[in-house]
Amino acid sequence: MPVVHEEKLRVAWVDTDASGRIHYTAALRYFEVAEHGLMRDLLGGAPGPDPNRPFSLPRVHVEADFKLALRYADEFTCRARVAHVGTSSVSYRFEIADARGELAIEGRIVAVATDLEGRKTPLPDPLRKALESAL
Amino acid sequence: MPVVHEEKLRVAWVDTDASGRIHYTAALRYFEVAEHGLMRDLLGGAPGPDPNRPFSLPRVHVEADFKLALRYADEFTCRARVAHVGTSSVSYRFEIADARGELAIEGRIVAVATDLEGRKTPLPDPLRKALESAL
Amino acid sequence: MPVVHEEKLRVAWVDTDASGRIHYTAALRYFEVAEHGLMRDLLGGAPGPDPNRPFSLPRVHVEADFKLALRYADEFTCRARVAHVGTSSVSYRFEIADARGELAIEGRIVAVATDLEGRKTPLPDPLRKALESAL
Amino acid sequence: MPVVHEEKLRVAWVDTDASGRIHYTAALRYFEVAEHGLMRDLLGGAPGPDPNRPFSLPRVHVEADFKLALRYADEFTCRARVAHVGTSSVSYRFEIADARGELAIEGRIVAVATDLEGRKTPLPDPLRKALESAL
Repeated sequence: MPVVHEEKLRVAWVDTDASGRIHYTAALRYFEVAEHGLMRDLLGGAPGPDPNRPFSLPRVHVEADFKLALRYADEFTCRARVAHVGTSSVSYRFEIADARGELAIEGRIVAVATDLEGRKTPLPDPLRKALESAL
Repeated sequence: MPVVHEEKLRVAWVDTDASGRIHYTAALRYFEVAEHGLMRDLLGGAPGPDPNRPFSLPRVHVEADFKLALRYADEFTCRARVAHVGTSSVSYRFEIADARGELAIEGRIVAVATDLEGRKTPLPDPLRKALESAL
Repeated sequence: MPVVHEEKLRVAWVDTDASGRIHYTAALRYFEVAEHGLMRDLLGGAPGPDPNRPFSLPRVHVEADFKLALRYADEFTCRARVAHVGTSSVSYRFEIADARGELAIEGRIVAVATDLEGRKTPLPDPLRKALESAL
Repeated sequence: MPVVHEEKLRVAWVDTDASGRIHYTAALRYFEVAEHGLMRDLLGGAPGPDPNRPFSLPRVHVEADFKLALRYADEFTCRARVAHVGTSSVSYRFEIADARGELAIEGRIVAVATDLEGRKTPLPDPLRKALESAL
C-alpha cells in the first residue's frame, strides 16, 4: 500500500500575486514541503537533501496542472507519494485538495541521482530501499 | 498581558541559499506567517488583509537582526505581538527561537493604514480595538 | 516567422538553494519574465496581465525539463514564444540557454482565459490577434 | 567619491501580492541584485559570495523604509553603495527610485565576516581594500 505523506497548509500572503490567487510557483513550493515530509517519513527522520553528501538528486522534470484557484488564507492539504523508482531516478506524484476536499492542483516531479560532477549515478541502496518501500 | 501568536515552523529547502543557511528574506516570510496568525487570533478568524476592503495596510518599515543561523529542516518557533498602536499605524515585534529555544532572529514591522488612493487614514475602529486589546 | 522574445539574465543569489544550484522554481520565474516581455512586444507596450481587466488568464499547465545546472551569477538567455492559440487558451514555449549557448532548461505553459467568476471564456479579440501574429 | 552601482529593473508579476503592489520582500531582492552588482564592480568581475571560500559574510541586520508603492511592470532604478567598513563588518545603503526619479524605498544592510564555524573574523584584506575604495 503506497505511503502518502500529507501536509495541512494555509496560503500565505506572500504566495499570492496581483491576480488575488496564488502565484503558480507557490504550488511547487507546497509540493516540495510534502515531498520532504515524505522523505523524512521514509528515511526515519533524516532531513532529506543534504548538501554535504556525496551525491545529489536534482530535478529533471516538473509539471503541474491547476484545476481550482487557491486564495489568501485558504486551508488546503498537499499529499506526496512515490510513483516510480528507476535505477537512477525517482518520480513523485502530488495532489493539493482544497478545504472541501476537491482536487485543486496535481503535479509530478522526476529527480535523478548524480555524482558531484553531475553524472547520472545509481540511487544509493538505502535511499532506493526506502523509496521502493513506499510504492 | 500582551497576546503572543506562536507558529511552529520548519525551514523548507526553498528557504535556503547557496550558503547552506536560509536566505534572509525567508525570515521575513516567517514573520508574516506569525503576524497573520496573530491577526486571525485578534479578529476572530478573519483572514487579515483583504484585497477588496476599502483601506490598505502597507508596510512602511521593516527590520530584522540575525543572531544565529537557521539551516534546512531546522525546526523553530516564530512569535508575533503588537508592540504599538498609533492613530494610523501599528508596529509588530517578532522573535524566532531555534529548536533549543535560543533567540535566532528578531524583527520589527510598522504598517500604516491608507485609503485606496494611498493617503494615510486612521485605523478602522474594529481593527484598532482588536490591536489595542493585544498590547 | 515566430516572434521570439529574449531576455538576458543572471542568476541571483536568492535564486540558489543549499545545493549550490538554482532552486527549480527560479526557472519558472525566468520563464515568466520572458513571457511578459513577449506580451509587451506583442501588445505594443501594454504591461501584460492587468488585475483590473474583466478577464483573467490563469495558468492551467506548466512543465519544465532541466538539462544543465545553473549556478550563482551565471549569465543566461531565456527565450519565450507562442506555441499554440486555441479558442480560450494559449501555449507558450520557453528555452533557457547557458552562457555557451547550450540548452539548460526548457518549458511549456498553458493559460486559459476565464471571466471574473472563473468560467472559461474565449480569448478577447485583440489578445487573440496579437498572439496569432506571433506564431 | 563613493562608488554607486545602479541596476535598471522592472517589477515582475511574481513580485506582486494580492494588494496589487510588490510584496515587501521583493524590495530586499532588488537590494541584493544591486549589492552583488556593486561587488562585481569592486572585485573586478568576481561573482561576489562564493559558497566554497573559507569565510562567509552573513547579514546581521537589514532594514527598509517604504515611501511609494511599486506595481506590476513598473520600471525603477536600484542603487547600492558601501556606507561603512568596520574590522569585520560592512554596511551597504540602498535606494530605489521610481520611473519619475522619486525615492520609493530605501534600505540598509550590515554583513559580518565569519569563519566556517560562524565566529566573527576580520574581513579578508582584498575584500576590505575593495570595499574601502568605494567609500
